[in-house]
Amino acid sequence: MSLTVVGSIAFDSVRTPFGERERMLGGSAVHFSLAASFFTTVHVVGPVGDDFGDEHLELLRSRGIETGDIERVPGGETFFWRGHYDHDMNVAHTDDTQLNVFADFQPKLSEASRSADMLFLGNIQPGLQRDVRQQSAARFAALDSMNLWIETERESLLAAISEVDGVILNDAEVRMLTEEPNLARAARALIELGPRLVVAKRGEYGAALFTGDWFFAIPGFLLEDVHDPTGAGDSFAGGFLGYLDEIGSAAPQEADLRLAMAYGTVLASFNVEEFGTDRVASLDRAEVDRRVTRLRAMTSFAAG
Amino acid sequence: MSLTVVGSIAFDSVRTPFGERERMLGGSAVHFSLAASFFTTVHVVGPVGDDFGDEHLELLRSRGIETGDIERVPGGETFFWRGHYDHDMNVAHTDDTQLNVFADFQPKLSEASRSADMLFLGNIQPGLQRDVRQQSAARFAALDSMNLWIETERESLLAAISEVDGVILNDAEVRMLTEEPNLARAARALIELGPRLVVAKRGEYGAALFTGDWFFAIPGFLLEDVHDPTGAGDSFAGGFLGYLDEIGSAAPQEADLRLAMAYGTVLASFNVEEFGTDRVASLDRAEVDRRVTRLRAMTSFAAG
Repeated sequence: MSLTVVGSIAFDSVRTPFGERERMLGGSAVHFSLAASFFTTVHVVGPVGDDFGDEHLELLRSRGIETGDIERVPGGETFFWRGHYDHDMNVAHTDDTQLNVFADFQPKLSEASRSADMLFLGNIQPGLQRDVRQQSAARFAALDSMNLWIETERESLLAAISEVDGVILNDAEVRMLTEEPNLARAARALIELGPRLVVAKRGEYGAALFTGDWFFAIPGFLLEDVHDPTGAGDSFAGGFLGYLDEIGSAAPQEADLRLAMAYGTVLASFNVEEFGTDRVASLDRAEVDRRVTRLRAMTSFAAG
Repeated sequence: MSLTVVGSIAFDSVRTPFGERERMLGGSAVHFSLAASFFTTVHVVGPVGDDFGDEHLELLRSRGIETGDIERVPGGETFFWRGHYDHDMNVAHTDDTQLNVFADFQPKLSEASRSADMLFLGNIQPGLQRDVRQQSAARFAALDSMNLWIETERESLLAAISEVDGVILNDAEVRMLTEEPNLARAARALIELGPRLVVAKRGEYGAALFTGDWFFAIPGFLLEDVHDPTGAGDSFAGGFLGYLDEIGSAAPQEADLRLAMAYGTVLASFNVEEFGTDRVASLDRAEVDRRVTRLRAMTSFAAG
């Protein structure tokens, strides 16, 4: 099985109550790829500049990630984000965004990336997401987005949503996009556009999954050490779709989707324990599976 | 088994995106009592004024609640709260608070209320909570509180916490009280003061339970219809402690506490479906148990 992700590759400078780091490897496609790499072969598609070093490529390759579709733009600089978190680490404060080579990104998928079984359209302009969907032969495609596109490209985003199988958004974005304050109704409104499932990410509180027939909710994995939430949502998506690709079903069943939600939750929980990609890049699959078992223990209750 | 609750009895005027109601029966002791009444005999202790009608007493009695310790203050008026919710129904906006007879409330427990097996100290001044704890022979006592007391009576509240077995607070209050941004660490700091357990309520996102040895997390029951969140936290506490009293153990085991969290979650979910006490007052136990089963189905995932 294989999985293609299209999105940002970035350098992130982040300050949290637990420290400060400059120009760490980051971006939606990077966090997604690392999380999904525990399950399947990932093809990562995104642009970088001359400042993107071989050590960063090597980090991705060390996890088995295919980097042939990372496009190096001569004379360009890599997307840069600077932000900080105060004590409420659910809220990211952006201090600087330099799109750089990402501003003119026109994704072109190689044959290997086109033919992957699954496709994740990270948070890029909805028109580009639609274009990539057309290039891909994936039998299951999902997308993420953000408030900027909901505000400025709503119709294009709704069209992109109608062309994918899954939508993975923050809960506030699901509400905002549908102008429906109730999350379950808002998710249903998106499903009526075409997707088979909607995942609403809820930060430290976990995530909820909606299909046309049933709901599933999972709390976040309770942690005593949260050092940097950057990339948690993309790590969730990587764990979720990575597991679905691993099992290789074109039509995942309810039990598969529930377990995928647990994998997503666990990958997000590892991601936030250290700055940047430090924790996920040093994980192994056995640690992932052990934490899924612990998450089940943390959330189970038996009949009286 | 029996359970005593001390707290406010109120009239609430509430506006939400789904309607507006004037002077509904409310207050922490009322919402708690109704939720707990599905499990055990509840003694409710609190003051009311001349404006409190027999129909309100009758509503409580119809659920088997003991109202002998509802103190009618001659010439007084019942606690009144007016508030509204906008589209984000996690946030209550207070428009008016008239403490009335609640301002001079000095709880005096009858013999029946003193000898109940369990005690819930609703959100009143911490000094009064300590006084009531002294009056009671309960083998298990829990308390709630609010940001006002954390800001103005912090030392007294910490002393009250050291004298109870369980603490049931909103997650933001747990963090604020301990000045610790991480919820798991904040809960541990409270447990080190004496209680055996801390429940952090998380609004629509559910709740988390912390003991010295293990954590448990449960999402909220996903609902398409949320009409009035007022009293959800007290309904949670009533379902949680009511179930623990029903099983009658002085030292509830882990499986008991997990199932109690599910009952609390379910009672809170019924509470928010209609205005005021309408939904919980018309429930029956079979509906409660069916929703616990549905909550388990909504949150379960099996190994891969």
